[in-house]
Amino acid sequence: MRLAEIIAVGSELLTPFHADTNSLFLTEELNQLGVAVIHKSVVPDDRAALGEAFAQALERADLVIATGGLGPTEDDVTREALAELLGRRLLRDDRVLHQIRDRFARLDRPMTPNNERQALVPEGATVFPNDSGTAPGLWVEARGRAILLLPGPPGEARRIFAEQARPVIERRAGNRRMARRLLRVVGLSESGLDHRVAETYKQYEQISTTILATREGIEIHLTIWSEDAPEAARVLDELSARLVALLGEALVSATGETLDEVVARELSLSGSTVAVAESCTGGIVSARLTSLPGSSLFFRGGAVSYSNPMKTIWAGVPAELIEQHGAVSSEVAIAMAEGVRRSAETTLGLGITGIAGPGGGTPEKPVGTVHIALAGESGAEARPFLFGGDRDRIRHLAAQTALDMLRRRLLRGRNERS
Amino acid sequence: MRLAEIIAVGSELLTPFHADTNSLFLTEELNQLGVAVIHKSVVPDDRAALGEAFAQALERADLVIATGGLGPTEDDVTREALAELLGRRLLRDDRVLHQIRDRFARLDRPMTPNNERQALVPEGATVFPNDSGTAPGLWVEARGRAILLLPGPPGEARRIFAEQARPVIERRAGNRRMARRLLRVVGLSESGLDHRVAETYKQYEQISTTILATREGIEIHLTIWSEDAPEAARVLDELSARLVALLGEALVSATGETLDEVVARELSLSGSTVAVAESCTGGIVSARLTSLPGSSLFFRGGAVSYSNPMKTIWAGVPAELIEQHGAVSSEVAIAMAEGVRRSAETTLGLGITGIAGPGGGTPEKPVGTVHIALAGESGAEARPFLFGGDRDRIRHLAAQTALDMLRRRLLRGRNERS
Repeated sequence: MRLAEIIAVGSELLTPFHADTNSLFLTEELNQLGVAVIHKSVVPDDRAALGEAFAQALERADLVIATGGLGPTEDDVTREALAELLGRRLLRDDRVLHQIRDRFARLDRPMTPNNERQALVPEGATVFPNDSGTAPGLWVEARGRAILLLPGPPGEARRIFAEQARPVIERRAGNRRMARRLLRVVGLSESGLDHRVAETYKQYEQISTTILATREGIEIHLTIWSEDAPEAARVLDELSARLVALLGEALVSATGETLDEVVARELSLSGSTVAVAESCTGGIVSARLTSLPGSSLFFRGGAVSYSNPMKTIWAGVPAELIEQHGAVSSEVAIAMAEGVRRSAETTLGLGITGIAGPGGGTPEKPVGTVHIALAGESGAEARPFLFGGDRDRIRHLAAQTALDMLRRRLLRGRNERS
Repeated sequence: MRLAEIIAVGSELLTPFHADTNSLFLTEELNQLGVAVIHKSVVPDDRAALGEAFAQALERADLVIATGGLGPTEDDVTREALAELLGRRLLRDDRVLHQIRDRFARLDRPMTPNNERQALVPEGATVFPNDSGTAPGLWVEARGRAILLLPGPPGEARRIFAEQARPVIERRAGNRRMARRLLRVVGLSESGLDHRVAETYKQYEQISTTILATREGIEIHLTIWSEDAPEAARVLDELSARLVALLGEALVSATGETLDEVVARELSLSGSTVAVAESCTGGIVSARLTSLPGSSLFFRGGAVSYSNPMKTIWAGVPAELIEQHGAVSSEVAIAMAEGVRRSAETTLGLGITGIAGPGGGTPEKPVGTVHIALAGESGAEARPFLFGGDRDRIRHLAAQTALDMLRRRLLRGRNERS
């Protein structure tokens, strides 16, 4: 069992409102078992369309997983379409019926007759009971292939897969497994990064290297398929270490840790505390610093000083300074960082002021102008930026950059201590 | 042209890390033109797999749209696969080559020879120039069908589709169009909502009604396919008006406006100003209130008072009050709302304090306990909540609920004025 195909069933997945997400965690699980996903499709709740999708998938893959369309309503025809294609009868499974009845009784809800349809099982199928819903998972073997039907709700699909389907697939999977490393980088362009590392990763032909620009920075995915797990780990670690050396401070983590996670960890480890005075980012930096458990250990407070008086009242920025340099200036960013650090009695203070747009820009200070300052024991540094894009992107990039400045400062502090 | 199929091309879309998102906005645009999407697939950067996917799609749909795989690298084989399937030659288009060269010159970057591949065009294709990237869109007609190739980056795909492909499709589409209304609801459960409105919407058989629970509340989608646009609008408006009457204050908008948009609009219209003191939500409420352009007109500031002293320093909460009732209490929430309102001199003040977890819970105040207060001219009200779920969900629900309390207050204020 080496190649899988995933079919997401549901007419709502062919509207502009909903994307299939089940296939992402299924792919993660399958890859860990050494099974590659070679094709995915989204098919409406329609017998003919489903039959065709199953037939085509069975031509391509050893394992076909379909999610959705197992519910009680007449729209739900996944099991009927598969039974018809395979020429199998659908039989009522009394144990499943019993479990569904039990579930309704437990929830103290009346069971409508259409729920009985969920107890229909294609001849010869293995039933994977559903402890968190009504429709069970079904495992069918035919034409030398395996077909797994899972309910659509992600929680149910995930649980049935992990607890019941995964062991069956694992027994059939070969010895080939996927091993992976994820490096995260912030502060380089995609082409700048590739330029810096391409020569190195191209020396490792057995490793597939993918560079992906995301909203949170650039990801370097190193993937290897191998029957020799220790050797795969060794070669991945070797390339990873070489990339780490090449990337220097731009490397956020070589372990998949995100920028927010690294900042939180470094703040905790160093015993630092931080407070933020933010204007154009409107609270995003504070929200990210508090997104992880335990943040109250290092985060004291954030002043979202969205008007000039609040910069003075909460962050102690002198009104004259704002009048003299304008609210969007390095001087004010520094005063915000130092003021909030003083006010919250923290070791570090961040100050962010800028113009997120679309209004408010001038020829001297166009939309996207942002000043970010970081204050510590030994004074404050401010840096000017000009971010492109719309309001949402400018706010996001400003927050991202502020957190990255904090990360680099903590990193240098750690290197000095060690 | 009534039926479309979308193929997302890219091996990275068959990993656990990336889902196809282009198909969502393409579906939105196609539906507006009266074209239904009947099938979607994700295919690797592989000539044989792509050829098969195109062949199967051309059996099912009038219009096949493929996104991705048009880049400069050897992995990018979408145009080659299509040309091979259709038995067409690939010819170099000098105008496209010229545009690519221009683009590199403009960006002052060297153009590597592999970029010339992006100027290859299947015989007989129409070229849709790409103003924001290098690979142009391509429109090919064959076998009585149309095929549209778009670059993978969403911004480029979106722009080429909207500006160049859409008019071509519109000319070919029938008179049947999709019309839609989107109602947003906050503060009801999915089943509670359905119970309230099912009897009414079931009277409209020509309208397809879908109720979707999302992170931002519940959406009611009313959809109708019709050749008679005025009649479709009339019947949609009729059902929409009846639902509005049934939903009362739980209705956020009948126009698709989000909670954040409605709050921003009502604050602006009423000339109100607001400030926030938030603890467990860590800045999320401030970030949402400042997410839209023009927010500086009504938002003065947010105090993310994540530690007790900051509640006192920034929001004027007496230390004794915190000692007496605990930081997570209605009394402190009210003091935060009133204090921040006073400090920022706004008409309204929000105070939010709670336990987002996973730590910090006690038998009396378990994780998920949140107190939200709203202060105005005529005093303050506080409400206690117990939200379920993990840290992220609790923070999100607390922010959502605080903004909804603000919305309801503004709504009542407007009703009293009118």
